[in-house]
Formats: sequence, C-alpha cells, structure tokens
Amino acid sequence: MADSIYITPTDDTIVAPATTPGTSAIAVIRISGKETFNMVNTLFKAKDLTKQATHTIHFGTLREGNTILDEVLVSIFKAPNSFTKEDVIEISCHGSDFIVRKIIQALLKQGARLARPGEFTKRAFLNGRFDLTQAEAVADLIHSDSEASHIAAIHQMRGGISNEIKNLREKLIHFASMIELELDFGEEDVEFADRADLQKLITEIQKVLSSLIESFDVGNAIKNGVPTVIAGKPNAGKSTLLNVLLNEDKAIVSAIPGTTRDAIEDEVMIEGVRFRIIDTAGLRETTDTVEAIGVSRTRDKMKQASLIIYLFDAATTNPYDLEKELQEIAQLNIPFIVVANKSDQLLPSSAIYQWPESSQLIYISAANKLNIEELKSRMLKEVKAEKFVTGNTLITNIRHYESLRQTYQALQTVLTSINTGLSGDLLALDIRSALYHLGEITGEITTDDLLATIFSKFCIGK
Amino acid sequence: MADSIYITPTDDTIVAPATTPGTSAIAVIRISGKETFNMVNTLFKAKDLTKQATHTIHFGTLREGNTILDEVLVSIFKAPNSFTKEDVIEISCHGSDFIVRKIIQALLKQGARLARPGEFTKRAFLNGRFDLTQAEAVADLIHSDSEASHIAAIHQMRGGISNEIKNLREKLIHFASMIELELDFGEEDVEFADRADLQKLITEIQKVLSSLIESFDVGNAIKNGVPTVIAGKPNAGKSTLLNVLLNEDKAIVSAIPGTTRDAIEDEVMIEGVRFRIIDTAGLRETTDTVEAIGVSRTRDKMKQASLIIYLFDAATTNPYDLEKELQEIAQLNIPFIVVANKSDQLLPSSAIYQWPESSQLIYISAANKLNIEELKSRMLKEVKAEKFVTGNTLITNIRHYESLRQTYQALQTVLTSINTGLSGDLLALDIRSALYHLGEITGEITTDDLLATIFSKFCIGK
Repeated sequence: MADSIYITPTDDTIVAPATTPGTSAIAVIRISGKETFNMVNTLFKAKDLTKQATHTIHFGTLREGNTILDEVLVSIFKAPNSFTKEDVIEISCHGSDFIVRKIIQALLKQGARLARPGEFTKRAFLNGRFDLTQAEAVADLIHSDSEASHIAAIHQMRGGISNEIKNLREKLIHFASMIELELDFGEEDVEFADRADLQKLITEIQKVLSSLIESFDVGNAIKNGVPTVIAGKPNAGKSTLLNVLLNEDKAIVSAIPGTTRDAIEDEVMIEGVRFRIIDTAGLRETTDTVEAIGVSRTRDKMKQASLIIYLFDAATTNPYDLEKELQEIAQLNIPFIVVANKSDQLLPSSAIYQWPESSQLIYISAANKLNIEELKSRMLKEVKAEKFVTGNTLITNIRHYESLRQTYQALQTVLTSINTGLSGDLLALDIRSALYHLGEITGEITTDDLLATIFSKFCIGK
Repeated sequence: MADSIYITPTDDTIVAPATTPGTSAIAVIRISGKETFNMVNTLFKAKDLTKQATHTIHFGTLREGNTILDEVLVSIFKAPNSFTKEDVIEISCHGSDFIVRKIIQALLKQGARLARPGEFTKRAFLNGRFDLTQAEAVADLIHSDSEASHIAAIHQMRGGISNEIKNLREKLIHFASMIELELDFGEEDVEFADRADLQKLITEIQKVLSSLIESFDVGNAIKNGVPTVIAGKPNAGKSTLLNVLLNEDKAIVSAIPGTTRDAIEDEVMIEGVRFRIIDTAGLRETTDTVEAIGVSRTRDKMKQASLIIYLFDAATTNPYDLEKELQEIAQLNIPFIVVANKSDQLLPSSAIYQWPESSQLIYISAANKLNIEELKSRMLKEVKAEKFVTGNTLITNIRHYESLRQTYQALQTVLTSINTGLSGDLLALDIRSALYHLGEITGEITTDDLLATIFSKFCIGK
C-alpha cells in the first residue's frame, strides 16, 4: 500500500494459537515474521526447515532442551507466498491447551511476541495482500452463521465491494484530474471540464452510492439477522407458528454433532437469512387488561423490528377490529405481513366472518403447517433479501456505510459549488474530501487509530 | 497387525472436524479413506489434487455447484504416509462453525461418512501405524494438563510401554517355544527346558511386572492428580498455605490469554505434578464442637487422600496434643508431612513451646512465604514423583494395570505348576494365558468390544 499514510509497519515475529482452545484432535499455532524459520528450527530437530520448499509439510518432534513438547506437523509458507506475505509456519500439534501453551512459551523464549487480535490479518493488509474491506470480510466470514451472511462475507472477501469502490474512485480521480488541469491553466480561465458533464458524472456516482447506502438495511439485516415481531392477540397461534418455523430449521442445524449453538433468542433461518424473533410477551399479557398500555408496549417492541408479522385467528376475528389494528400498525412505517391463521377452519358454514380473497392476506394454518412456504417467501420479499441472491454488492459494515454517506455528502457539496459557480480550486478541495472518504473504505487512506479499531475486533491468531 | 483377531477393517471414507468448535482464525477438517482425493477434488477446482505430491499444501476455493463454501488451504497426505496410513486430506478453512458444517455436509453428499470418536486413531492402529498403548497415549496426550502427565503420555506415545511389554513378551515366547518343543517329543519324556532355569526366568519377568504394577500408583497420581489433604486445626494457616501454593501456580497459568481452565477444585501444580486439594471443611467446622465426629469426618476425607499435609501453629500448639494427633494420622497408613507453621514467630522468648530440631518436621511461614520450596520438595518426594523424571516407564492406564496383574497371576500359576511337577502341555496353557494378557496391552490381541471401549473415549476427529 504505497499510498497509505500514518502506518507503523512492524517487523518482529508474532505467534498465537489459530484454533479455538479446548480438547480436540489437533490445534494449530501460527507464527509470522522474519525470524519464524530460525525460531521453529531451534525446537524442530528433524530437518532444517529453511532448506525445505514452501507449501510443504514436515513431521517431527518439537523439543525444548531435553524435553519433548510434542510430535507435530509443521506447514511452511515462505514469504511472499503466505497469508501475511511474511515467512509463516503453522504448527499442527495435539489438541491440548497445555501443549499449545508449552509450544507458544517455547517460541516466546526464542524472542517471538504474542500476536495481538487480528495482527496476522493486519500484516496481510499492510503488506498489500488485500484491501481493508477484504480484511474486514475475513472477520465477518469467521463470525458468519447464516447462509446469507456467509455469501455476503465471501463476496466482500473476494473483492466485491473493493471493485465497486475502485470504479467509483477511478471516475472521481478522472474528474479531479480535469479540475486540477484547469488550475494549472488558472490564469487563462479555461474550462477543460464541461460543468454540465461534471454534474452528470457526479449524479451518476451519487446514484451508485445511494444504491450501496440503501443496501445497508438489507446488508445489516443479513449480517445481524432481521429483527422480526410476530404480533397478534392471545391464541392467534403465535407460538405455534414460531415453533413450525423453528423446528424445520433446528432439524437441519443439529444434523452434525458438536456444532449446535446455544440460542440466545429465537431465530428462524429462511433460505439462509436469519430472522431474529423479538419477544412480544408484553402484548400477550396486557391486551386483555389495560388496552392502552398494551398497545403502547406492543408499539415499542414493534418499533425495534424490521418486519412485523401480524397474525390473527381467521375463524374468530372481527374484520372491523382487524382493520383498526392494521391501521395502527401501518403508522409505524415498518414492512408488515398480515397472516390469517387457522384458515383450515374457515368452512363457509362455520366461519363467523367471511374473509375476502385478497393478495394482501396470507392464509395459513400453523397447526397443520399449511401455506408456510408462502409466508416464508413473503418474509424474504419484504426484507428485500432476494437482492443478495442476485450477487449484488451489499454494504454490511457500518464503517463502510458511514464513509459512503460522507462521500455522498462531499459530492453533494461539489454539485452545489458547481451550481453556484465556485472556482476550480474550491471544487478540487471538495472532490479530495470525497476521495478521502472513499479511500477510507478500502484502506487506501488509513490511520493507526482506524486500523487499531478494526483489528481489535478480530480474534487472536487471525 | 497380522496376528490381530476379531477385527473388522473398514474401507469407507470418513470426515470430521479436527479442531474445537468455535469462532477462531482457522478450523481444520480431516478426511481419510480411499475416496478422499476424489471427494475433495469435486469441491476444489484449483487443481487436480491426485497429481500433487504428498505433504504439500494448496490454496484454493471450495465450491458446491455455484456456491462458494470458502477459500481454504488443503494439506494432502498420500497413503501410506499419513496418520491413518490411508489417503488423508486436511482442509484448513476459516474458523466458523457454519463454514465447517457446510464443508462437511458437502463431503457427506459426496459419500463420506461422519467419523465416530477416535476413528482416525483406530484406523491408524488397525493399519499398523502404532500399537494400542501408543493409540491410548494419543488420547492421554490430548487430555494431559500437567507437565508430568504430558511427559508420561509422550513417553507412552513414543513406545515406552510398548518396548517394555515387547521385551517381556519375547522372553515369554522363548520360554513357551521350549515347552512346545518338549510337547513335540512328548513320548520321549525329554525336558528341553530346564525347570530351574524356567523358574528363574519367570521370577525375573514377574519382578519387572511387579515394578510396572507398582508404578500405577504414581502413574495414576500423575495422570489424575495427587489427592491431597491439608489438615490441621482452625487458624493453623491452611488457607494461607493453599493460597501461597495456588498463587504461584496461577501466575504461570494465566500468562497466555485464552487458555485458562475453569478450576473444578483447588489444584496446586508443583514441578509439573498436579496435587488436587481435597476440602477439609468438615474438620474445620466440627473440631471445636463434637470432637469425636470431627475426627471421624477428617479421617473419611483423609482416607481418600494419597498425601496428607498436617499443619499446626508452631507458636501455640501443645506438643503432647500434636503427638496424639500424629499417632491417629499414622494409623491411616498414608504418606504424611508434618508442617510447623508460623515458625517465624518462634522467638525463644515468645514461643510457648520449644520445638525440637527435627528432620521429621518442616518449619514454614505461610504468611511470609518462608521455606515453601522445602515443603514442595517433600510433597514431590512423598508421592515418589521423582520416579517419572528419571524416564522410567509408568503405568497410567487402568486397563494396562489390570492386564499386567492378570499376566502376573498367570505366571504365578505357571510357577505353581512347575513346583507340583505338572506336565508340559498344562504349563503351555498357562503360558499362553500370560501371553494373551500381555498381548491385550499392546493390542496384539484385541476384540471389537475392547477397541470400541478404548476409542469411544476419544474425541471426534481424532
């Protein structure tokens, strides 16, 4: 990253466990830096690792003095053909925290330093292996626990966002160069850059920026789950519906032992998109007592949501009551789906009310699992999650979101400046500001503080 | 293992995560079996892995159809140069349970089977990579969490016990062959094997067996910790002593983040040997009220111990009381150390009692950390833990212990048979019994049940 500023490169040798602590078949320790091979050679007596080819694996015994630490496999990666672009060795030892500790202690004694969180990835970034969005994608990928967040992270890691930003940046640089050219001829009052063309270009760039900025809602939902409220009166069948949605998912999740997560809250996974169900106990408890408080509490819950599923009992609900409630929900300005439950009980003779054939309503039976798939499709559609399937770039990172907004804002100032006929040197200032914010996203512009903030969120060994 | 019996070899392809679940830099998935390369090739598009050299590492993308699973490093080990002696691939992916699950699911779809606990090690054993004691040592090594248990497991994994057993077995086979030779000449009443020489040989073998059997106490203590009671009257300074011992240890343990264990009970690590401190609250609570119950409870606690540290306040304790208590403790027939605490308060003028200079007593001050090192040395000496440092073979596995005892017993029968002049064919039967039990240890004699019992204790992926 030749044009990076405020960067403190480090050239010492770092070590950390790269796998989760615990008792397992194997554990992996990662070492990176100039002294990697010398340090491991001191412990590994089988052969001289400096003389082995890169990307080869070597079996042998690690010894510290006369003490055998472990029998291990050593994988060697020679600079620049490694994750960090430095000399890297990965030691695959027996999966015991005690052994991992012993080996790391032995390497620390050789002069290695315990790596800080994210330091391997930081070095990879500093050494130009990838840009900042890709480095961040590595962390996202590790934390991804749904199909959709996984796809978004992979897309970002493989340069999806970088390419979008690069395109925008090239256009802006082209724009800037024309303005700067004008400045060189400042006295002659020439306009190389036609103001109308410039306005058009900026509007085009802003359109792309808007689209990326707007994708953050979907992107964030995909990364963190869609906060969803299943609302409705007592006995509408909310719990039954939740269980139907949950159970299908759980069966898939528990197919492989040892990988089930502790559920912090109820989560429903639909085609890889996670819907986080927000508890609406408040509604259930209070509607029958003090109506005013009940509505107020429900609204508070609903305001946190990105999606509301309003469930009612089709066999017993009064259409006029429903109408009134839906009007209240509509005022929240949050996407909502109206679901008529127990629709299988709607025999013409027994139903109290006749519900119209309507594309607005979805008729289901939670208890008998009727029409659940249609509900799921609607849920996906409402959060615009189909966008991610088409391979469009999604903004999932709030840092990127902020920088994009600042870029957009700076361009807006440029537009205003053009309209008010400001001179080229003032235009150039605003364009540089836009370029700066765009550069922050990919890390072409960085500060130590920014890097520290980003990489401190990584786990050790990454 | 040509002479193994009752073994069902398996030749399908197995897969399992080899690292602890959780969010980390990397996770490793292990695949072993005939179809390993074909299965991974289906997902890994970068190059044909069958055409790559063994012990090489390849970077690439795993895809299932159009879906990118992850960017991974693939380590290949070609039969027989692998842990299982089969074709093995280790996939190093990003450390996310979601990704691990996706990749394993993709391999299961290719026809792989999820490995049972210990199945990789079982295959390694069945394919003759090592004997049963070494396979068991792999599990011990993974679970070792002290210096001493680690050394014992490494020694065993590298064939320490195997070699001892092999020596004994060769001697017994030589013995058996002489007897069998006699049987071939049965009618002629020849004695090829001089009975006195045989008796001498058996006694020699029994001596080695005895030594191994006796080492189980130390071995077991080293593997599972030495159950230790710090006994004494209230205010003798038991808690202070425990803290002094604990704190020094904890400072070492917590030097590397992410590896501290939840302590289930108080444990003190001295030169790598773990002393498990058994709570003697019972003693503390009852001595001052009902003396009889107190003594009884203390005794119960003490009976569970392998070591008792009896602590008394040197400044206030009456020597005659102490004498009486030590007599009681001596009756338990458990090694004990008598420790005079607060010895720094023993000024000739202020001390109530004069304590003799005695090699039996250790004078310490827990509060001022005086003479703690001497106490530690005594603790090590009392459990004979110094034995392990000398590199002697220790029996740490109760299965080995039982088989050794049965071997000893069978040889005892042989001795009796010789003394009572029993014929060669009856002697041969007893010797075969001894050989059988010895063979069980290393796995030259195995049953499916035995193997199932042993390997089911392993973790998945090992």
